Amino acid sequence: MTMARPNGGTEPPRNEAVVLSLDAMGGDKGPQAVVAGLGKFLLDEPEARVLLHGPEDVLAPLVRKLDRVTVVHAPEVVVMTDKPSQVMRRGKDTSMWSAVDAVRDGEAQAIVSCGNTGALMAVSMLRLRKLPGVNRPAIACLWPSLNPTGFNVMLDVGADIRADAEDLLAYSLMGASYARQGLGIQRPRVGLLNVGTEEHKGRQELKDAHELIEVAAPRGSFDFAGFVEGGDIPSDRVDVIVTDGFTGNVALKTGEGTARLISQLLREHLTAGPLGMAAAFLARAQFNRLRTRIDPRRVNGGVFLGLGGTVIKSHGSADATGVAAALSLAHRLGKAGFAARLAARVASSVALAQDSITDGEPTPANGANRVGTAPEER
Amino acid sequence: MTMARPNGGTEPPRNEAVVLSLDAMGGDKGPQAVVAGLGKFLLDEPEARVLLHGPEDVLAPLVRKLDRVTVVHAPEVVVMTDKPSQVMRRGKDTSMWSAVDAVRDGEAQAIVSCGNTGALMAVSMLRLRKLPGVNRPAIACLWPSLNPTGFNVMLDVGADIRADAEDLLAYSLMGASYARQGLGIQRPRVGLLNVGTEEHKGRQELKDAHELIEVAAPRGSFDFAGFVEGGDIPSDRVDVIVTDGFTGNVALKTGEGTARLISQLLREHLTAGPLGMAAAFLARAQFNRLRTRIDPRRVNGGVFLGLGGTVIKSHGSADATGVAAALSLAHRLGKAGFAARLAARVASSVALAQDSITDGEPTPANGANRVGTAPEER
Repeated sequence: MTMARPNGGTEPPRNEAVVLSLDAMGGDKGPQAVVAGLGKFLLDEPEARVLLHGPEDVLAPLVRKLDRVTVVHAPEVVVMTDKPSQVMRRGKDTSMWSAVDAVRDGEAQAIVSCGNTGALMAVSMLRLRKLPGVNRPAIACLWPSLNPTGFNVMLDVGADIRADAEDLLAYSLMGASYARQGLGIQRPRVGLLNVGTEEHKGRQELKDAHELIEVAAPRGSFDFAGFVEGGDIPSDRVDVIVTDGFTGNVALKTGEGTARLISQLLREHLTAGPLGMAAAFLARAQFNRLRTRIDPRRVNGGVFLGLGGTVIKSHGSADATGVAAALSLAHRLGKAGFAARLAARVASSVALAQDSITDGEPTPANGANRVGTAPEER
Repeated sequence: MTMARPNGGTEPPRNEAVVLSLDAMGGDKGPQAVVAGLGKFLLDEPEARVLLHGPEDVLAPLVRKLDRVTVVHAPEVVVMTDKPSQVMRRGKDTSMWSAVDAVRDGEAQAIVSCGNTGALMAVSMLRLRKLPGVNRPAIACLWPSLNPTGFNVMLDVGADIRADAEDLLAYSLMGASYARQGLGIQRPRVGLLNVGTEEHKGRQELKDAHELIEVAAPRGSFDFAGFVEGGDIPSDRVDVIVTDGFTGNVALKTGEGTARLISQLLREHLTAGPLGMAAAFLARAQFNRLRTRIDPRRVNGGVFLGLGGTVIKSHGSADATGVAAALSLAHRLGKAGFAARLAARVASSVALAQDSITDGEPTPANGANRVGTAPEER
């Protein structure tokens, strides 16, 4: 097995501790919640080091008791109402920009921010650049599922409202890489979201994507499950669900809304009478375990895929548990050299698929040649 | 208040019993389940009459004990694997075709079928025609929600994978009409599904539709809530959610999949130990009530909107409870003269919106004129 070459400083030397870059500002609960999450995370990862970006006078008192944290002074803050374009033009002194630049400059292996999603994507694209072969970066989330790992990967859940066939191919490769490094699934099963599983169904770009992904799957080391439906998202039929950012965002929020509805109705029904209340009391451990199993804070962290570095967007409303979960994910991905592996995988496979579009049928000769030059991911 | 004029026989004279047209064939559970559901329904509605379509030798023995049922002989059956185009060309002798024609010919006020959705839509469009002002008919479903009625209306959930701004306007009008007649909500709140609630978000057709619907809302007697997100679908922020059939279908199936996931995990957790099992035993009445509250069989029946007659598509796998629920819905809509009310509402408002697109600003004069000629819905 060959190792991927280091790429823009995102691959840590194997024996050194992972360094993470954490934007302390911009979350709904303020830097206190972020630092509380950081404290939890550092207890779990005794080797990890963190660069914490934000106003020094605010952060210094908060981190006094934490080892392995370096405050990087950035006086300004991106707020939720800032427009991405404003931040791109005038955001150089913000904690978000500073956090992104730490990865750009090779000082850290991954970024975590609870800030404004649009601004974080804009600054990340500007400073880290898109990967060769990627036209539209995507946001991937982990979705509670019946899979043995407990989760499926779904992308794009909102980076871009459009995706053409080649974007969907890139999402397949990136999603498979993420399932491999993030969930430890050696050979992920990838499904393309549609309104039916028959091959003639859906929009033209989905039929085109179906062909492209089918061709790319063997070289991308994933299995293509073909079209899947909304009901398959939390199933164990697939590990990765690929869709455009409009559909993905609606599906994600619909799933969250449905879970909230059921949990609220369950609570109402179980507090409606003495038997229900007794039952709720008896089963409180079971209910707590179920709540933990589908707790959105446990899977806190949308990952931006397709950039020259690993960027993790934590929920704006994340509390200490949520921030710690996002940092753990960043740590796992940073340690695995995820950014470089993903870059290598996408560069080889997308180029190949583009050749196959241009040349008609892919020939075994150029196929073999391309695959030979691509570093293996694992 | 003026009454809508009868339209192609779909409006029953006020004092006569509603007649429903029921396709006995094509469901997964066979005509026995359909007739069992019919029996349940007739007990609840002592005035209703039903035309039951299918092979006479199969149906006659099944309905022997049922009053108020007339078997209409149709020797052939549309099966789930039949292509809509085949059924349109060669389906004249099928029970589905016969059931649709009973409404076309003014013999019944609404159709219920458990058969092939695509074929039912194709035959309905061919025989009942699209309403003036409707380019794409839609399928509307009832979605369990926190609203006082317990349900929201969502459309389109799969009639067409595309919808432009004018289609979305027509869906708003049709969805509002359906919420009024089907759920009894006098002034429905309509939301347009998007990836954010800000007006600058989303695809161009959504921004265009936002403008059109905003203009049409006062005359359509509904309130426009603007953009809503996936999380609002089961909420009490709106009564009607409007989207294209691709997004709607994915959202519907995602919601169903999420509900299945939670119910399966809940069952696993509550049977994992003695306390959980004791709790499940104590709270069985509460769990049953919750199950009933979100039981898909209770809301069985996607309604085809935008056609010259009321068509209700029951789940293919519907059992007697599901079929009875679909018949009840058909009865409620038939009794309300839904088809004619909807037709009047759409014809006036869509024409008006089209004028406003052509002329720039709608003038009070032509607006007032148009509204004056439209029969009121209620």
